[in-house]
Amino acid sequence: MQAKDFNNLVLLEHDEFERRLDKIRAAMAEQQMPAMLVSDNANKYYLTGRVYAGYAYIPIEGEVIFFVRRPVELQGDGVVYIRKPEEIAESISLNVPEAIGMELDILPYSSVSRMKAVFPESELQNASAVMRHVRAVKTPVEIEMIRRSGVKHVHVYSRIPHLYQAGMTDMELQVEIERVSRLEGCLGQFRISGDSMELYMGNVLVGDNADAPSPYDFAMGGAGLDPSLPVGANDSTIKPGNTVMVDMNGNYDGYMTDMTRVFALGDIDPLALKAHQCSLDIHRELTSMMRPGTPAKDLYARAEEIVRERELHPYYMGHRQHAGFIGHGVGIEINELPVIAPRSRDIIAEGNVIALEPKFVIPHTGAVGIENTYAVHADHVECLTAAPEEISYFDV
Amino acid sequence: MQAKDFNNLVLLEHDEFERRLDKIRAAMAEQQMPAMLVSDNANKYYLTGRVYAGYAYIPIEGEVIFFVRRPVELQGDGVVYIRKPEEIAESISLNVPEAIGMELDILPYSSVSRMKAVFPESELQNASAVMRHVRAVKTPVEIEMIRRSGVKHVHVYSRIPHLYQAGMTDMELQVEIERVSRLEGCLGQFRISGDSMELYMGNVLVGDNADAPSPYDFAMGGAGLDPSLPVGANDSTIKPGNTVMVDMNGNYDGYMTDMTRVFALGDIDPLALKAHQCSLDIHRELTSMMRPGTPAKDLYARAEEIVRERELHPYYMGHRQHAGFIGHGVGIEINELPVIAPRSRDIIAEGNVIALEPKFVIPHTGAVGIENTYAVHADHVECLTAAPEEISYFDV
Repeated sequence: MQAKDFNNLVLLEHDEFERRLDKIRAAMAEQQMPAMLVSDNANKYYLTGRVYAGYAYIPIEGEVIFFVRRPVELQGDGVVYIRKPEEIAESISLNVPEAIGMELDILPYSSVSRMKAVFPESELQNASAVMRHVRAVKTPVEIEMIRRSGVKHVHVYSRIPHLYQAGMTDMELQVEIERVSRLEGCLGQFRISGDSMELYMGNVLVGDNADAPSPYDFAMGGAGLDPSLPVGANDSTIKPGNTVMVDMNGNYDGYMTDMTRVFALGDIDPLALKAHQCSLDIHRELTSMMRPGTPAKDLYARAEEIVRERELHPYYMGHRQHAGFIGHGVGIEINELPVIAPRSRDIIAEGNVIALEPKFVIPHTGAVGIENTYAVHADHVECLTAAPEEISYFDV
Repeated sequence: MQAKDFNNLVLLEHDEFERRLDKIRAAMAEQQMPAMLVSDNANKYYLTGRVYAGYAYIPIEGEVIFFVRRPVELQGDGVVYIRKPEEIAESISLNVPEAIGMELDILPYSSVSRMKAVFPESELQNASAVMRHVRAVKTPVEIEMIRRSGVKHVHVYSRIPHLYQAGMTDMELQVEIERVSRLEGCLGQFRISGDSMELYMGNVLVGDNADAPSPYDFAMGGAGLDPSLPVGANDSTIKPGNTVMVDMNGNYDGYMTDMTRVFALGDIDPLALKAHQCSLDIHRELTSMMRPGTPAKDLYARAEEIVRERELHPYYMGHRQHAGFIGHGVGIEINELPVIAPRSRDIIAEGNVIALEPKFVIPHTGAVGIENTYAVHADHVECLTAAPEEISYFDV
């Protein structure tokens, strides 16, 4: 995927760069946005294949200008080094756009105000939605990167049963999974759009800790180790009759898979087995529906129907606290479009990569259900996290 | 530090909560800010001792109102559950402030616009600077939490020589340090104000990788494993003559220490030894100057003077790319006030906790120099990362 010279600012192959730029410009045209100034790391990475400090100025016609603060020594067409954003004005002065799109859902208010002053004549538009919609539909190159992350992610999960040792806590097991993930090449970085969601390397939820309500908008919670980061493992010892839900970071190359599997120690409550089977059945049903043109909310509704038929709704997506979605786009960030939620307006499209996570919390047992990441193709859905889906039992 | 009932929204002891609130209100009075709506996780954690989803409304007089979206089941004075920010208006309606402070340097433009609509009559003010200044001066309870993180951080570093094995890469060593850190209780979360700085768990820099320019505004760079996260270890094998600079996450309880030590394999360039000694001497000199009332820029200038006297400036704070600061406040976040930089306007104050990191990059050898975290008291400076400062040699 990468150009040969690492000093080139744009690391994408020429065709891939042009393909992404065309997609961005098509979306800009739809929103009547004559120019866009991109500064979010995820969006710059999408456009260029690298993270750098600075901006990308994308006019709907003409050359892209890359305004770079750091690192030193980058080269290529359109690269302009700046020390402060005000220097952008000089390069744009001959061609001031009528309106300028900035990432208003991501950029701090002060940064937008400062950048807007560089374009005093231009109307301010919101580039966040444009970039979110563009990035929701992956190129084949992007899907291949997610596929590669998936292969490593699956490999790491295959080693989990061997990492368990009698008497372990959730955190002790999580640390060993983190180690294996990192040695497999996991980058660790867990990109979430919006800065109020925090999580370190993923979640291992054991027993009733799965039912501890968290402030964060993840599907499952957990009390965490400390009130400064109230999510995930809380030093619970893994006991017979517990499930262990593993939902660990799958970012191996800048693009992530999202994947959850369940392990258990000894026999577990038949209700948990029933709920786990329900999750598998929902996956089967939704992947058969997940074709270009399907409204995302129909997927949510169908899943809920299945859950209610089986009378599992008190446990669905949490017990004391319920999550409001069962799936989400995934790629550079963990919370991309489409969102599989009751009032979602998203329509499934070819090129979407979607993590489905119908899960249940069974009191006194723990969390069950799986999460897979799927690529949506024209006439089928490809599972990018193909690993055994049944509950895996630790050796007692 | 924590109240007994974990369901209480405010986990701080009553006196500590009042102390922090008084400090915030004194700063608000100075800025003529009649009310503040806090939504940043770090600021909510400062005020309450926990992270929750929602807002804290702080009028300069009267009761604080905690508007909570998640988690469920929190209790206490002033707790009001809301589903969306617009519901805040109802609780405030009898007492609309003339102006409302929001964290404009952190909150996305769209969020500020949405929240501002809740206060249509109120002038918008910037709460970011207020909270940054308040948090720059720690309470004794906060210093004690940083001190505790420091003890664990030091303990982890003491094990590093035992983790090294012949033939290791930077990343292999880093993964073993990460594991030991996590088992010691490291929370992993690396809070940085502003969302364009990214780093996973810290940096292990070996040999010339220390000289690879990074886009991020850290003191040292590193190429990283992938252009999506271009910082830190890059799979360099640790070779004789290399230094290994370790600067790993020190967040063990919501408050962090920042600490760097240097290891080496075999004999290293005498220039590197000289530069390391220079770093130690700068620490000694600056901690003797770091008293309440000292301008931060004087510390920077004095360090630079020492470096120039010894003709080490080509290597100081980087070689191909130079960092523009040699120290920073640390606490809940890694980039707090004061900043030790040439044009800093900050004045050292009692209660500051400051990480000093005069470092050097020596071509073909690697990075040298140490980082310690210091608490500033009325008449002395306390080192919160007290560990041997000399270069530690791995067994060949």
